[in-house]
Parts: sequence; structure tokens; C-alpha cells
Amino acid sequence: MPLLVMKFGGTSVATLDRIKRAAKRVGREVANGYDVIVIVSAMSGETNKLVGYVGETSPMYDAREYDAVVSSGENVTAGLMALTLQEMDIPARSWQGWQVPLKTNSAHGAARIEEIPTENINTKFGEGMRVAVVAGFQGISHEGRITTLGRGGSDTTAVAFAAAFDAERCDIYTDVDGVYTTDPRITDKARKMERISFEEMLELASLGAKVLQTRSVELAMRYKVKLRVLSSFEEYDPNAGTLICAEEDIVENKPVAGLAASREEAKMTLVSVADRPGIAASIFGPLADAGINVDMIVQNISENGETDMTFSCPTDQVKRAESALSGAKERGEFTYDELICDTDVAKISLVGIGMRSQSGVAAKMFKVLSQEGINIKVIATSEIKISVLVDRKYTELAVQALHDAFELDKA
Amino acid sequence: MPLLVMKFGGTSVATLDRIKRAAKRVGREVANGYDVIVIVSAMSGETNKLVGYVGETSPMYDAREYDAVVSSGENVTAGLMALTLQEMDIPARSWQGWQVPLKTNSAHGAARIEEIPTENINTKFGEGMRVAVVAGFQGISHEGRITTLGRGGSDTTAVAFAAAFDAERCDIYTDVDGVYTTDPRITDKARKMERISFEEMLELASLGAKVLQTRSVELAMRYKVKLRVLSSFEEYDPNAGTLICAEEDIVENKPVAGLAASREEAKMTLVSVADRPGIAASIFGPLADAGINVDMIVQNISENGETDMTFSCPTDQVKRAESALSGAKERGEFTYDELICDTDVAKISLVGIGMRSQSGVAAKMFKVLSQEGINIKVIATSEIKISVLVDRKYTELAVQALHDAFELDKA
Repeated sequence: MPLLVMKFGGTSVATLDRIKRAAKRVGREVANGYDVIVIVSAMSGETNKLVGYVGETSPMYDAREYDAVVSSGENVTAGLMALTLQEMDIPARSWQGWQVPLKTNSAHGAARIEEIPTENINTKFGEGMRVAVVAGFQGISHEGRITTLGRGGSDTTAVAFAAAFDAERCDIYTDVDGVYTTDPRITDKARKMERISFEEMLELASLGAKVLQTRSVELAMRYKVKLRVLSSFEEYDPNAGTLICAEEDIVENKPVAGLAASREEAKMTLVSVADRPGIAASIFGPLADAGINVDMIVQNISENGETDMTFSCPTDQVKRAESALSGAKERGEFTYDELICDTDVAKISLVGIGMRSQSGVAAKMFKVLSQEGINIKVIATSEIKISVLVDRKYTELAVQALHDAFELDKA
Repeated sequence: MPLLVMKFGGTSVATLDRIKRAAKRVGREVANGYDVIVIVSAMSGETNKLVGYVGETSPMYDAREYDAVVSSGENVTAGLMALTLQEMDIPARSWQGWQVPLKTNSAHGAARIEEIPTENINTKFGEGMRVAVVAGFQGISHEGRITTLGRGGSDTTAVAFAAAFDAERCDIYTDVDGVYTTDPRITDKARKMERISFEEMLELASLGAKVLQTRSVELAMRYKVKLRVLSSFEEYDPNAGTLICAEEDIVENKPVAGLAASREEAKMTLVSVADRPGIAASIFGPLADAGINVDMIVQNISENGETDMTFSCPTDQVKRAESALSGAKERGEFTYDELICDTDVAKISLVGIGMRSQSGVAAKMFKVLSQEGINIKVIATSEIKISVLVDRKYTELAVQALHDAFELDKA
């Protein structure tokens, strides 16, 4: 029988009524002739409660015990979902991570999936089970301890199951009805996309579009899992949501698909760094060791053997970045006159696979911003993305102007 | 190293502060040189919440899913307890039932323990772990599904671990400070016992003394596990609580150790039953099939080939008993004129291993009750117990008079 994976996030299973509503969607796909693997998150609020318990008990907690505690929320939902389906006369049973077993490495709290053997669940499908309800977010290590995949790990669980079981599609049910050209809270012209490529979704996800966890998109891209994001609160519609798929399945050929704005980026500038071979490595080495996610990097033209080095990183990592840099300076690894932090910036990014073939996107972007009187502080580009840092107060203005200029509101 | 099992019930781990207080007691025993296996219940209220979810989702639930859901509360406490101990620099880790693995049969919801292999935990003790924190109440079936042992199953888990690991003692921490001669809410002369035999505790537990689950006492008796019941809310005292132990370890030789009163017993009388060989079997067979816990049985002297048959059962089983009996009557299995239910009774029981050797206990009991003007409706005796049914309004009077007469307030 063809197989679907359906994943329901925390808000979609927040109450017994919502679990029932989710189960009805599963029932419809079963009636359509699918076997279904359902991946569930914890009822919303539960994981936060458990994380709170752990943090209060032990600030520097043992991650193995953290995982044992916080994984319990998903187990509850899995059992309740199986019971709800059974009440609808659909043969279903729950699976905890270790029962599958979903094997991971031992990086507790952020484990990576290594293997999902299909025998156990397929045997039950063979015996007439129609729905396997799997607790998301969790697995088992080589040592037999419970692991979790990190926040949003249920998306990754879902995609990994879709890949392992060669599912026709992986539907991610959440509280938004798809992927938008930009954040609808910033402009009401934001348009829900019918399709978007893995590459574009990956850029948007890592730019802060919270609809899907980056890792799950990576995984879907690697294993060519057709991924659909849709709302569990809308009426049933077989074409609802946004399909995330391979580039060749996209007909649209606009240069820009989406537009992301992040206010959680800070700009840091090292003033008067000695410009010598290897200087970049000696600066960004300590930052990498400190776990700083450096995003954009710009080096000014060298003058008198000195240069300014500017980079961006998440605002909540600024303190750590500062101490990593001053530590390296004290150890004599490099020198600089001053470290300037600007947390009053926003990163505006255009994303589109069309950029590869169509030129002039960057030029048009800069022109639009200049027409609005918005000064660009830093520019960074990749094959399918252009990002700029601007003063934070211009976020809405920049997004609205660019959204209009690139006609993202038109399909 | 010598080993202790310490079990903390739901009220003893109801909050993070209480978990900390419990952990301090564990720490004290570790400092005393013990390795410790800690058995924990769910934080109080959690199991009821989960049971409520299941009941609301599916009134005729799949017991396997029930078990998967309700066992999660203990997993949370186990992880939090391990973290709390680690914060105290005590090497500890948590174990869920399937990790031990605590093997049970497949009677989901009321599973029986079949085996507790000691290798996994002992290996960790060998590596320097001082405390194994085990989630109580749960195990794993031959099919690899999670099972639960039924209400109060954590007591049974604790005793079973004490037996499997040959523990020096099994301490059950709860919200009362020991076993009393009778319910202290009925008479303030009730006295906490220092020791009580397994046999007496078993009778008192099955008579409704809620301090320990009957099955755990049975198990302790079979494997000669020294069991201690004590409060987790009192100051530390190495001799606190009540020790439940083998008869030979008891010095006291009073005929009566304790006195139980149950208001949850109903008296049922079948009037004018044809008295023939096998009549008792044909009456109590259908009751057993309906799962009725028949306790006391009295048959009147036969007259004209007819007799009255009286028995007692828990009040909440009266309806089921009635329909089982009327069903059997309709099927022609036996006849009776009338079925009289009296739910306005109480069962008063004297328990003591001394009764075996000392006569006159029953006679004295009857005399005391008669002096108080209390009419006895049904009498039943066992080797170490005498129970009578009386009008419910006499409960307090009977308990107080008997407690005084047998001098239970004196050690």
C-alpha cells in the first residue's frame, strides 16, 4: 500500500480535541488507501514544562537525564493518538523511539539519526495495522539511553521516516498554512507559495523562517522526500499548504522566491586589525571554538597594513563572541584597536534559485533600498541568496519595498 | 557494598523541593556506605491526569496504549531524581523499566513481574555509580511493549528489586510515619507499631490499610525482604517508621496486633436458597466470574431443605453482584426468594499472629461488643484474624472499645 508520513506539531495536539481533529485527517488518508506513519510532538507547553524542571533541578544538567525527562511528553501524545485512532476503528499502535528502534549517535540533546530499521513497523503493517504513531524528537543511543534530536526534532523525525519507508510524501501539520514569500506580519501582501525548492526553503529556514527546522529540510533534500507544510486548523484540502520539492518540479521561474527579515542578527566590527596572511583564520578560529554562528563576513580594503573586519552573528551570541575575541587578543593571537558591536541592525535577504540564471537581482535590490533612503551596512551573497544588513528601524520599509519591486505578491 | 532499596511515593516527590528532600535521605544512606536503588512514583497528580486523558479519549481503551501513556510520569521523576543526586555529587543515573529490563507478563494494566536481571545495574555499580534511580510501576512485556503493574505498583517494584538485588532492607517512604494499631482518625489512642509481621501486615493491607499494596507485602513475605514504612516528611531517624518482618523477628507476643475498620463492605443475603450439594459452588461461581471479591460467607442452618446464604463484598461491586446472581437465577442455575442488600454496615477486624497460640480472643471481642450494645451481623475468622460485620453507625464505638479492651495503645 502507498505510505504517507504525517507530522503534527505541539499546537496541533495541544488538547484531546485537537488530537481528535488531527486523527480525523489521518483517517481521511487511510480512507484514501494510504498506510500512515504519524509523528507527534508533545502537547504544547509540556516540553517547556519538563525543560523548566530540568533547568531548575540542575543548571549544568547531565544531558542523558535531560533527554530521559523531556522525551516523555511525546510518549503521552503517541499513546493518546493511537487510542483516538482506535476509537475511529482504525488499527493503530504507538511506538516510542527505542521501540522502533530509531538509532542515533550519543550527542544527547542534539542527537543525529543514524538508522531507522523498518522491520518492526512493516511487520505490523503486514498484519493489518494501518497507522503507526511514532513519538517524535527521540531515539536510542548505542548505549541504550534515550536521546533527543533537539528543538524541532520532530520535523527531522518525520522526514527521516519518510526517507526510510520511501513514503509518497511527508506532510508537516503546523499552525501556519504554508510557506510565505515573507513574514505576513510585516506586509499583508505576503503570499503563500504553492511550491518552493529544497534549496530555497533551506535558505529561508536558516534565515529564521520558523516553519521548518533547517535539518529536516536538509534531510528532505538529500533523500528527495516530498515535503508539504500545511495547517492543521484549516478545512481539509488535498492541495493545501506549500510543497517543498526538487528544483525540477517547480515551474515558476522568478528570480526571487522569498524574502526573509531577521532582527536577531548583530554586526560586529574589529577596527584596525593587522592585515597579514592567516589573519581571518586567527580571528574566526576562536569564534568557531566558542560555538558562534558567524554569518556574513566583510573585510575592508587594507590601508597601511591594517584592515577592519566586520561580521554578523546572532544577537544572543554577542557576549560570548566578545569574550572569545578579547581572550584571543590577550593570548596575543592578533591585535585590534577596538571592537564595535551594533545590535541595532536587521538582516534582509532575498532568496531564489532563479538568481543562478538571471542577473541583475543584486543591482535591483540595492537600487530599491537606495530609493527608500536605506543605507546598506554589509552585503553578503551566495548562489541563491543576497543578504544585506540595514538599520533595524528600516526593516518593515525594506521588506515592503522589496516585496513590491520583485512582485512577490503575484504568483 | 551493602545495598538498600528506597521507594518514594507520589506525595514524597510531588515538587522539585520534595525531590530534593528525598534525595537528601538517599545521600545520607550513601554516606552511611550503602549503594542504593531508588524507586520513584510519578509526581502526585500526574498519573491521575494521564489516566484522565486516556479515559476521556477512549472509554474502552487498549490497555497497551494506556500503559504507554501512564508510565511516562515515573520516567520524569526518575530523571529529575538522578539529576538532583548528581547535583549533590552522588554518581547516579535513571533507568526506565525497559532499560533494566524489568520483565513482566502481558497483563497490561496489572502486569506481574517475571524477572529482574541484575547485570545492567550491577555493572554500573561496579563502575562507581552509587544510586540507580528506577521508574516504578512499569516493565516490559515479552512483546516489547510497556506494561504497568497496577495502582500502587511502585511498592511492588521496590520489593521486587530488594529481592532481586538481595538488599539489606527496603524502605518505603510515604506520607504517614508507619503502620498504626488502627486508623488514627478513628481513635487518638492509635499507636504506631515498631514492628509487625508480614502475615499481619498482609491481613491489614487487604482489610484496607492503604499504607502498602497487598501484592508488595506478599512478595516481601515470600522473599523475606525486610520492609520498612516511614514518612518522608519527618526528620531523619534511623529507627523511624514500622518494620515489617518475619514472625521470628517479633518479640511482642500480644494476641492482637492491629484493628481494622472498613466502611466499604456490603452485606448481601440470598433468602430461601434450595439447600443441596454444590449449591455454594453454583452461587459463588458466577460471582467469581463477574470478578466480585467475596469476603465473608455465612450459611444458615438448613430448614425444610432451604437455607439463607449471606456474604460480604465491596460496596462498589454490589450492582455487579446483583446482576450476576439474577442472571444465574434466570438461567436456572439456582433459585432464591429474595436478595437483600445491606450497604449500611462496617467490617471490624482484629489481626494478630498471637491468636494462633492464645485462645479466647474471639470470645473477648464478642463480649466487648455486646457490652456496648453492638449487634454482630456476620462473623468470619481465619487463623490470625477475626472479622465481624456491624451496623455502620457503630464503627467508631466498636473500634474504640476494642482498642481499649485489647490494650493496643500499650507497646
